[in-house]
Amino acid sequence: VERLIAEMSMSLDGFVAGPHAGGTHPLGEGGERLHAWLYELASWRRRHGLTGGTEGPESDALEESLGQAGAVVMGHGMYRVASGRWGDRPPYRAPVFVLTHTPREPDVRSAGTTFHFVTDGLESALQRARDAARMQDVLLAGGASVVRQAVWAGLLDELRLHIVPVLLGDGVRLFGDIRHQYVEWESSRISGESGVVHLRLRPPKRRPS
Amino acid sequence: VERLIAEMSMSLDGFVAGPHAGGTHPLGEGGERLHAWLYELASWRRRHGLTGGTEGPESDALEESLGQAGAVVMGHGMYRVASGRWGDRPPYRAPVFVLTHTPREPDVRSAGTTFHFVTDGLESALQRARDAARMQDVLLAGGASVVRQAVWAGLLDELRLHIVPVLLGDGVRLFGDIRHQYVEWESSRISGESGVVHLRLRPPKRRPS
Repeated sequence: VERLIAEMSMSLDGFVAGPHAGGTHPLGEGGERLHAWLYELASWRRRHGLTGGTEGPESDALEESLGQAGAVVMGHGMYRVASGRWGDRPPYRAPVFVLTHTPREPDVRSAGTTFHFVTDGLESALQRARDAARMQDVLLAGGASVVRQAVWAGLLDELRLHIVPVLLGDGVRLFGDIRHQYVEWESSRISGESGVVHLRLRPPKRRPS
Repeated sequence: VERLIAEMSMSLDGFVAGPHAGGTHPLGEGGERLHAWLYELASWRRRHGLTGGTEGPESDALEESLGQAGAVVMGHGMYRVASGRWGDRPPYRAPVFVLTHTPREPDVRSAGTTFHFVTDGLESALQRARDAARMQDVLLAGGASVVRQAVWAGLLDELRLHIVPVLLGDGVRLFGDIRHQYVEWESSRISGESGVVHLRLRPPKRRPS
């Protein structure tokens, strides 16, 4: 059965984007730093048509994660980050469903990725992604509010949290609007050679009350 | 040369104590959960004169950490936690220097730990601890404000951060009063079998401007 997996990079002090995010600066001040570990990985570079980079367990884990993704769901902010930066070569070889408020035609990239725009909410986007994924995983690529929404709705199977050893001091918190005093997660795989800690977390599956 | 090492257990959302901390509830609501992993370790239990518990790398790492501590420094809140709970058997076999505002006589426990009270600030407590440690490590046992003070003063050599897979939602943040937009740390050892991630972090050694 397909799983819903979220991947997020977070600072030591809990931020997934720096302050003053938006416009031409979608990750905020210092927010780029949270993703720097990715750009060094050989598997990430191959996905973008580049050579070089670091091989090893982190690179393999990313390759596996991307390879198992039969479809991707993301918020509109992430799409703006992705679409500006990735050009014709997004790292996903799978259809991407973008949550938005404004209907628009699919955005087809020449390397084979198509961004579809979904205007009727997360559960609808997830349904379309599941249909497209054909029993592979659905990857939830962020941002924070979309991931939180999936967690609190009890829809997320696993959070792959990459904790980056930097303090941003301000910005967008991943766990910023907690409605519950206490939520226990299950932590499984832990790894990291680059200095980044990769945590795989299983949220509680029931809908929190 | 002796190093200054801090150990802290932190929730996924960045809290080192739950909400409404104080009085008979020094770790706040849910805050006890952050230390539960410790109580299961064989080395922790031995330190408290108990049998049983889990052997393995986490237990060994704790034993090593406590064994290398030639002296301990803590804030007064931590002392209240420790003194109530630990009775005659604190886990430290070393002098403990407690930061406080009110002078008082040393508190001598029968198992060999003595708590000394220091009224003239962190740097003075650290100096006394270094003298007592005789080239062994000085352990900074918390709370959050004392650890932050040591970090921002450029005094801390290593933070051993234990990230516990639970969301507390509210409480005392470890990195709650950051005066800098951006602080890069160096992450070294990462481990964890209990589900808790143990990160060893080296803060920047210069005094941040």
